[in-house]
Amino acid sequence: MSLGQEAAELDARDPLAGKRAEFDLDPQLAYLDGNSLGAPPRTVAARMDEVVRKQWAGRLIRSWDEGWWDAPQRIGDRIAPLVGAAPGQVVVGDSTSVNLFKVLVAAVRLNPGRPEIVVDATTFPTDGYVAESAARLTGHEIRRVTPAEMPAAVSERTAAALVNHVDYRSGRLHDLPGITAGLHAAGALAVWDLCHSVGAVPVELDAAGVDLAVGCTYKFLNGGPGAPAFCYVPVRWQERFDQPLPGWAGHADPFGMSEEYTGKAGIGRARAGTPDILSMLALDAALDVWADVSIAQVREKALSLGDFFLRCLDELVPAAEVLTPRDHASRGNQLSVRWPDAQHVMAAMAESDIIGDFRPPDVLRFGLAALYTRYGDVLRAARFLSGWPG
Amino acid sequence: MSLGQEAAELDARDPLAGKRAEFDLDPQLAYLDGNSLGAPPRTVAARMDEVVRKQWAGRLIRSWDEGWWDAPQRIGDRIAPLVGAAPGQVVVGDSTSVNLFKVLVAAVRLNPGRPEIVVDATTFPTDGYVAESAARLTGHEIRRVTPAEMPAAVSERTAAALVNHVDYRSGRLHDLPGITAGLHAAGALAVWDLCHSVGAVPVELDAAGVDLAVGCTYKFLNGGPGAPAFCYVPVRWQERFDQPLPGWAGHADPFGMSEEYTGKAGIGRARAGTPDILSMLALDAALDVWADVSIAQVREKALSLGDFFLRCLDELVPAAEVLTPRDHASRGNQLSVRWPDAQHVMAAMAESDIIGDFRPPDVLRFGLAALYTRYGDVLRAARFLSGWPG
Repeated sequence: MSLGQEAAELDARDPLAGKRAEFDLDPQLAYLDGNSLGAPPRTVAARMDEVVRKQWAGRLIRSWDEGWWDAPQRIGDRIAPLVGAAPGQVVVGDSTSVNLFKVLVAAVRLNPGRPEIVVDATTFPTDGYVAESAARLTGHEIRRVTPAEMPAAVSERTAAALVNHVDYRSGRLHDLPGITAGLHAAGALAVWDLCHSVGAVPVELDAAGVDLAVGCTYKFLNGGPGAPAFCYVPVRWQERFDQPLPGWAGHADPFGMSEEYTGKAGIGRARAGTPDILSMLALDAALDVWADVSIAQVREKALSLGDFFLRCLDELVPAAEVLTPRDHASRGNQLSVRWPDAQHVMAAMAESDIIGDFRPPDVLRFGLAALYTRYGDVLRAARFLSGWPG
Repeated sequence: MSLGQEAAELDARDPLAGKRAEFDLDPQLAYLDGNSLGAPPRTVAARMDEVVRKQWAGRLIRSWDEGWWDAPQRIGDRIAPLVGAAPGQVVVGDSTSVNLFKVLVAAVRLNPGRPEIVVDATTFPTDGYVAESAARLTGHEIRRVTPAEMPAAVSERTAAALVNHVDYRSGRLHDLPGITAGLHAAGALAVWDLCHSVGAVPVELDAAGVDLAVGCTYKFLNGGPGAPAFCYVPVRWQERFDQPLPGWAGHADPFGMSEEYTGKAGIGRARAGTPDILSMLALDAALDVWADVSIAQVREKALSLGDFFLRCLDELVPAAEVLTPRDHASRGNQLSVRWPDAQHVMAAMAESDIIGDFRPPDVLRFGLAALYTRYGDVLRAARFLSGWPG
């Protein structure tokens, strides 16, 4: 059977094949960049219209009491099951960078007397910048260590370690329960960045005893460009969660207008300023695609898509160097390929309606968003590379 | 001439009367809460549809290069003339609380060796909470002083003072140029919160030599619920603007993925994480209403509306205690009225399609957004109060 026949057969018997129709995606497009920006669920446009015309125009300020004010927690509770969190522990709002700052400062305050913050040496750069800033303001040192080395590298000097669940460049999936346990053995708090795993990979925050976590919603949760991020604070830390952006929305009595800050009981104290309602309710609509699908199903298909993509690459482009681990346990939700003129080839692929992305200096990234990616899409990408001159 | 005849005549000859048609507002509604949430310009719903269906769905990740990435500065430059700032000094993004944190930490770093931050004692509470947090992290003390007393109260110990241009409760407008000059005489930096003045009152940041400022866009700029805030950093401070939320969007080379943070040259370094595009482009559309109207026109009408409202109150509700200064130089863009059962009466007014808001314990606030408020609207509010039992 040819790869083409095989792709057609795999697509024909894919139990998630019907989900693509829930997204507003050109049928011709092989969209392999859901790891950067998820595709728009069809529900979003209508919801935005409703929010602007019915809620904002129709009810004006009264809408704050009719669902807007509590949206950060309500939508957080919709994300919670996707990351293995019981209700009341996830809240949506602000950017990932801002949430990282909140949780890192809070983390060192939860674990005083320890002078260092350990940061994933392979992290998305923002995490490092924000950690440096938090360390500078709280009088901590930063030490950069790869995730695998962390359990051995941390000590009684380590207040907290910030780790990425999936390496944004290579697509490697790190062992969240194992590293968390290793950090805890040294008394360090485990702070996880879930940007590249939420909505794609099983995440069990409560079960693993993760201390704090953040994630974005514009990749595999399809919340829209720059959609609000989320932050996870488990019940056991909420009362002592002392964060550096104490805005009125996190106050116990926000409309009491007290001069003194008293954080809300529960996850609400991780809120800062007025929530950004249009973006937040776009995300709310986008989450509807999860009504009839589980992370386990998504993961199963994505691994199968990746396996097929790897076979296509091996057969059609044997010279391609795949940076992502082939074993399922270490594979995130993308395949990264080293390619000499990566930026050039990726631009050319886009001209042929195959969209991935490029990370300098020479990495092609192909996201495998299982809700709308077809086996035929990854075959097209491999075929394009096989025909590339050079 | 009766007040009713007078209102009709004032509305008939109002040069801004036609602007109300640019807003999606029920004709029956007296909307006097633009100081909390501006009304939706009609352009917003169509723009949101375009952003979701054409930009996000149609172009997907490519839209980042087609206007999204630079939106924070581009939209900042649209706000700049409304606050008397030359281009390249205003950037949009994050909430007001988050921007306050950025500018306060940056301010004390610009003015080292001074141990205190002075905060407007009458401020909207969030400003105080955020200032306390910034002070705690940077090792400063907080002292609370009323705006009028600030020039006399600050000293060589004062790194910066945070002042509200308009008191959110009383509607009093403070003397921005005078207080700024007074702060500068002591070597303190002047940091202004423009939430209640931008889009309503003339603001001349460059001319007054203001050091840093923030403002929201969901009141008189009509950007939508929780729309992104803005921050002003004048050219003279940009090179040394060292802010505590150094996300990748503020990096000199954001896609270079360098491990080290180097802030962008110019106002862009005030950016933190990925910009929230849906909300940001809603604001962009909302700013279109300013194409043919100036702040001077808006101010002239709003003062006239306020004068008429005061006469209605004096005549119809002589017992009402107006907290807002009557003189134009000290009046912001709302009238605040002390009323014994304020919360109750405001709820009842809403039932009669007159929307204002309530601040505890006993303050009624009526915003005078000149682009859509009619003389007949304020007369209705006064008549309602005059008929209130009790």
